[in-house]
Amino acid sequence: MAESRFRYRAVLAYVGTGFRGWQIQPNAARTVQSVVEEALAVFAGESVRPLAAGRTDAGVHADGQVVHFDLRLSREPREVRDALNTLLPWDVRVMQAERASPDFHARRDALWKDYLYRWSRADVIAPRDSLFVAPLSANAEAARMAAAAALLPGRRDFGVFAVRRSRGDSVRTLHSVSIEERGPELRALFRGDSFLRGMVRSICGLLADIGRGRVPPDRMRRIIESGNRSLLAQKAPAQGLTLVKVEYPRVTLVP
Amino acid sequence: MAESRFRYRAVLAYVGTGFRGWQIQPNAARTVQSVVEEALAVFAGESVRPLAAGRTDAGVHADGQVVHFDLRLSREPREVRDALNTLLPWDVRVMQAERASPDFHARRDALWKDYLYRWSRADVIAPRDSLFVAPLSANAEAARMAAAAALLPGRRDFGVFAVRRSRGDSVRTLHSVSIEERGPELRALFRGDSFLRGMVRSICGLLADIGRGRVPPDRMRRIIESGNRSLLAQKAPAQGLTLVKVEYPRVTLVP
Repeated sequence: MAESRFRYRAVLAYVGTGFRGWQIQPNAARTVQSVVEEALAVFAGESVRPLAAGRTDAGVHADGQVVHFDLRLSREPREVRDALNTLLPWDVRVMQAERASPDFHARRDALWKDYLYRWSRADVIAPRDSLFVAPLSANAEAARMAAAAALLPGRRDFGVFAVRRSRGDSVRTLHSVSIEERGPELRALFRGDSFLRGMVRSICGLLADIGRGRVPPDRMRRIIESGNRSLLAQKAPAQGLTLVKVEYPRVTLVP
Repeated sequence: MAESRFRYRAVLAYVGTGFRGWQIQPNAARTVQSVVEEALAVFAGESVRPLAAGRTDAGVHADGQVVHFDLRLSREPREVRDALNTLLPWDVRVMQAERASPDFHARRDALWKDYLYRWSRADVIAPRDSLFVAPLSANAEAARMAAAAALLPGRRDFGVFAVRRSRGDSVRTLHSVSIEERGPELRALFRGDSFLRGMVRSICGLLADIGRGRVPPDRMRRIIESGNRSLLAQKAPAQGLTLVKVEYPRVTLVP
């Protein structure tokens, strides 16, 4: 008879600076998945693998990464959250934990994800911001970046922006890309059903070049239409990127 | 004939987590003064000691620490700022540099200083905040803390709040202490002519105990009037404290 298990859904926040990304690697690199798995092993007394909604890259932060994992014992979600937080290093926290239905899947059930990219056009970026913000030249113009960003939303093949052409389907739906100005700071907020590896940082590198006038806003259209990778800019640095939120249908939660 | 030297005034921001405070120590601990002095030595080709407005303790942050130092050569302030920033580690930045009159003194000329203490009453503090915020129980009440804080401003002997009774004069003028509520966060902002060592964190430890109802707000008055150190609470943790700003008369700057 199969042993019964209880599925949990947890929201994680982490500062990505000290991690080689989310996913466990064969070389024992410090990854978010590995430290969460270690905390779960101590808490549960057995090996428990957490699965995440999005595989953030090395150096990328999360305010609202979502994971699921199974435990043999039914524990109060608040107890799971607090116990894991005493076991985790300072740079990862379980912000929330909930019981989930046994078939809840953090990646497959996600409706959309929000990624935020932050730049600062300040002459000097304060140390407390420099962990989370990429530098951008003072003359970068939000209006040029917004004009280029407006060409992106829709259901289309984003394969040209992926780290390498994946063999699978590279068609994705990008619901919106908005550019916001807050004093010297510029922000790009992406909402999409899912994202290809490296896609947001590749787009942001291009937006930065467009903002400072190195290439015209229309370059975005040319890249999308031609799929020509030689027209791309350098990827924007990882520290500017944060996985802000993952949204799910309400029904996946056990009441 | 005395060699002529040029005085500079610089505003520094630092994340205090990785420092044993501002001041150079005999044991070669990593301090802000020591890393700034190392950068100045490389830049100026000679030993140059920076002097600060306030000697922040181990773990305490600064958004607007002010220092002065002398260089043999007259250099553009912007060049000094940018050169030092390429030489400094990530956790200290020169936010501004200016030429100052030869008799400008960062500590003696300061009119007042602003220190900010931040607490969070959230169930879980996100990693990106945990470097700068101290935890406080969810039931802590801003109104109780504000009632106690209102007893502090004025010109009085604050020696009871100092790390140890200094031999010198412990009379200081505290212009204001204000308590602000921002969602789950509580903040105490102190403006004073100068502060005794450990004074703000000692007061904040007491404010935290008053906020969560462990001791009545009137305890503040009893301590001030009696000078009885046994009535004090535990010092609030260093990571919640930031030296925000130091104000000077305008006339000390060379136009």
